[in-house]
Amino acid sequence: MAMTGARYRADGVKDFVTKLYTSFGAQENWARTASDVIVMADLFNIQTHGVERIKDYHQAILDGKLIPSAQPEILHETSISALVDGHEGLGHALAVWCMELAIQKARTSGVGIVSLRNSNHYGFAGYYPLMAVKEHLLGFTVTNTEGLMVPTGSKEPLLGSNPIAFGMYAQPYPFLLDMSTTVIPGGKLSLYTRDNKKLLPNCGLDTEGKPTLDPAAVRAGINSKHFGGILPLGGLGEDYGGHKGYGLAMMVEILSSILAGTNTSNNIRRFDKHDKNGEFFVAMDYSLFGDPAEMENHLSCYMDTLRNSARFDPDVPIYTHGQKQFEAMEENQRQGIFIREATHAEHLAVAQAVGFDPTPYFQEVT
Amino acid sequence: MAMTGARYRADGVKDFVTKLYTSFGAQENWARTASDVIVMADLFNIQTHGVERIKDYHQAILDGKLIPSAQPEILHETSISALVDGHEGLGHALAVWCMELAIQKARTSGVGIVSLRNSNHYGFAGYYPLMAVKEHLLGFTVTNTEGLMVPTGSKEPLLGSNPIAFGMYAQPYPFLLDMSTTVIPGGKLSLYTRDNKKLLPNCGLDTEGKPTLDPAAVRAGINSKHFGGILPLGGLGEDYGGHKGYGLAMMVEILSSILAGTNTSNNIRRFDKHDKNGEFFVAMDYSLFGDPAEMENHLSCYMDTLRNSARFDPDVPIYTHGQKQFEAMEENQRQGIFIREATHAEHLAVAQAVGFDPTPYFQEVT
Repeated sequence: MAMTGARYRADGVKDFVTKLYTSFGAQENWARTASDVIVMADLFNIQTHGVERIKDYHQAILDGKLIPSAQPEILHETSISALVDGHEGLGHALAVWCMELAIQKARTSGVGIVSLRNSNHYGFAGYYPLMAVKEHLLGFTVTNTEGLMVPTGSKEPLLGSNPIAFGMYAQPYPFLLDMSTTVIPGGKLSLYTRDNKKLLPNCGLDTEGKPTLDPAAVRAGINSKHFGGILPLGGLGEDYGGHKGYGLAMMVEILSSILAGTNTSNNIRRFDKHDKNGEFFVAMDYSLFGDPAEMENHLSCYMDTLRNSARFDPDVPIYTHGQKQFEAMEENQRQGIFIREATHAEHLAVAQAVGFDPTPYFQEVT
Repeated sequence: MAMTGARYRADGVKDFVTKLYTSFGAQENWARTASDVIVMADLFNIQTHGVERIKDYHQAILDGKLIPSAQPEILHETSISALVDGHEGLGHALAVWCMELAIQKARTSGVGIVSLRNSNHYGFAGYYPLMAVKEHLLGFTVTNTEGLMVPTGSKEPLLGSNPIAFGMYAQPYPFLLDMSTTVIPGGKLSLYTRDNKKLLPNCGLDTEGKPTLDPAAVRAGINSKHFGGILPLGGLGEDYGGHKGYGLAMMVEILSSILAGTNTSNNIRRFDKHDKNGEFFVAMDYSLFGDPAEMENHLSCYMDTLRNSARFDPDVPIYTHGQKQFEAMEENQRQGIFIREATHAEHLAVAQAVGFDPTPYFQEVT
């Protein structure tokens, strides 16, 4: 089923998001940073983390949970580390700021490790390691989120989607892993509900904590904060390694919320509380261990070996991580980013509520 | 089906492993370090990484691939990092040595990152983060291995089991994640073959690169180094996130082999080559980000919340990672470690081949 919508120039849409945030007191360059992350998700075809979220971000601003003018504050710093308070500012811009700090430290001290507390949703996690990759550094980030994942053996949504993102420079594409630690991404629930599709078995539990194929029932479980949610990567029980997905989510929880001294996922968006989630950023200079060009070449050759290996299905190519996204970006830069009609209507409504004319920002590519 | 075997005092078995390695030129303390890791796996009920492997290690010594007398050499060092050449020594002892180095650096500089090249199988990965955990540091390690995992979309075993191990101090048990990035552990293949059991669907491919339920066919695929192997965590294709397990394995490959400038998994045990695998160790002082006792308390409370949450099945407890292992250890320290009859016969044969009397080392606990 083809979705109804249109393609718009990415730059115009970025200006729209910037305008929204500056209207609520964000500095121009701060708003521009956040909008670059959001629109990059659309350029990479990760629509669930792109401008589809604008309506939610606007609502969070109105609720006083997202404060576009808030600036980060360094609470404690060493040559290799920093603890930063985000003061509930723009999650995307805070994350860019923290990763830049980690990169500076990696340049001077070999490694930079930054822990961020009191943040908000930072969107497409892969953006931040990519900043390090461009500087020929390893990049790594994790964040916790609203509770939506059920630990192995439990029926309560006590863990976040808790993504892991990691990147290293290579040719012709970098290696860029960006994965939630759940068996299916949370975005699949709304997508499947919209398209009237059933989930595969072993993906989620309903409001009674029982297995279900109904994506809306899983979402209802998450919203209830009582029983139900998405299962960990590996699915139900331990047969397919569900305890591994659960364990990875716990590792993310420790690195993001426990180290930052902020909300664990079970306390995010519960009883209408503020998010105040935690994030963790690492940049590392691999010249600590040898010649960077040699390592990058080694990785490029290895990924080439994988892509050119014998296919399970002759008609389905073997991809390395990041490849699909970089291929999509080239096309979307040319053709414009695709925005669904319903999402576009939300954007127009947001502009009207804020009180500015959205038309100059949405230039259709035909 | 109950396995035939007996329980032996752990200390005696450690002395046996030490005797084996010193017989081949290892220094006493070096051999003792390796044996402590090996027997700790049995104490933790991770038999696949315990004394079951002695026969393989002995064979590797005879083949000249494992050199018990080899000592690690630091090739490059900073206050936060080291690149170490393992010279194909005892994998377990080398890993302990590297983690100790990382811990020292974390104590003085906040973080210690050690990359090890030319190593051998280091066994139970969780041992090394646990060393850091005892010092109230975060501990992390990854290693690549023999090629046995098939990347998503491929039918060749080009990636290792590539485990991730991570730990943090908590009460009453630490958090200790120790997981391969495959959908099932490699040890399940021999276990299921021995017990004449079939695999679940979506766990492995045979020598033609086709899905199979036969564990021996998956092993044959791995041994062929041509087609077949275990699927990534998440299984076949992308429906259940198989590309995530594949991506995690790649992250491990980068951190272990690419940074160390040593063999990627596709080149290990291929055409009878030496292993020369890579390993990566991190220790991090979380007092960089706040009060360690507060963080540990936060984590302990959170894990308590998980364990006491509503159960999916009222009769099945909810565990946190490391809990089962610590509970097993207490019991096995008391009751002795269980060694199968077939494995014990291998030990006797090894002792005979080396030329010492094994009887004093195996004290049955009755």
